[in-house]
Amino acid sequence: MKIIMIGAAGTIGKKVIAALEKEHGIVRVGRTSGDIRADITSLDSIEKMFKQAGAFDALVSMAGDIHFGPLKDMTDTEFRKGLDSKLMGQVNLVLVGQHYINPGGSFTLTSGSLSDDPVPLGANASAVNAALEGFGRSAALELTGDVRINVVSPSVVEDSPGYFPFFPGYFPVTMERVVAAYQKSILGARTGEVFAVR
Amino acid sequence: MKIIMIGAAGTIGKKVIAALEKEHGIVRVGRTSGDIRADITSLDSIEKMFKQAGAFDALVSMAGDIHFGPLKDMTDTEFRKGLDSKLMGQVNLVLVGQHYINPGGSFTLTSGSLSDDPVPLGANASAVNAALEGFGRSAALELTGDVRINVVSPSVVEDSPGYFPFFPGYFPVTMERVVAAYQKSILGARTGEVFAVR
Repeated sequence: MKIIMIGAAGTIGKKVIAALEKEHGIVRVGRTSGDIRADITSLDSIEKMFKQAGAFDALVSMAGDIHFGPLKDMTDTEFRKGLDSKLMGQVNLVLVGQHYINPGGSFTLTSGSLSDDPVPLGANASAVNAALEGFGRSAALELTGDVRINVVSPSVVEDSPGYFPFFPGYFPVTMERVVAAYQKSILGARTGEVFAVR
Repeated sequence: MKIIMIGAAGTIGKKVIAALEKEHGIVRVGRTSGDIRADITSLDSIEKMFKQAGAFDALVSMAGDIHFGPLKDMTDTEFRKGLDSKLMGQVNLVLVGQHYINPGGSFTLTSGSLSDDPVPLGANASAVNAALEGFGRSAALELTGDVRINVVSPSVVEDSPGYFPFFPGYFPVTMERVVAAYQKSILGARTGEVFAVR
């Protein structure tokens, strides 16, 4: 299977690739490294990436930034950072990628547990993550050629202790379980689902 | 109670106002009618509206447009229509309005059942509605002065038969139940919740 990995050099990306690269061909995509460089906040960059990558069987996105900060002085501009990057970046990977994906292929996007398990400072992340989950559920109804789409929604991962202070009482999940959720989406048969790792 | 109603002239807005105007002071806000004219896609217009309205006890938003159409040729520009209008319009009503609302006040936003009960053509609405619900859950953690926020998520309403063909098997909900959900949010004590009317 030819699998395009967006965010290949990230904490999760590296581990998902390690679990798949023996049996599958991986096209690594990153902002500043990889087989192809692409910035998902740019529609033009996404279109160029797909033209360069060509037809593929699976796309996995583990990319996108959000704004994390207090609601009391949050601005429209700050809130739109998450919309432009993590939300529209991943949505555009599907809107454009649906014209390049092989029949029977799959899209796997990444949200996060703040969609339904919120913390202070996370209003933008909660909105963006929930939006991605809603988009996945709905897009699954319209993708043709047996193309599937799922969203992986990980909680705080044990490999990222820097986040722990912002998530009191969140029991960190293991990277093995997070990687398994991506495998379930890529290698399984289900579609329109949110694979929550909590 | 002084209640600002955004989308006062809409199908739902008129009925919510009718249920509240005997006991409360209503400030009607609309794009082309009302006590104050405001366009929620404009941050400047929202700021002017709050300056004109002054301190208030409740804000109810029943406004905002989404893009409804096929995924197969959906564009970034079309998708952003829902983000700019129904999502950021309502988010900005809270980001700006939190500086004008009285202690003990409440925000009530409107999403819709496509957040978790999707139909074809509705990918943008599903994303926008889910985002609003995620935002409400998270914002509730940070609003101070006993200010509350909830999101009403109505299914297809019996008063809007024009939508029925796009929602096969959706049993239309009565306007009485939709109005009751807004009353539950405005007049009750709960916060951070989605009041689904299905």
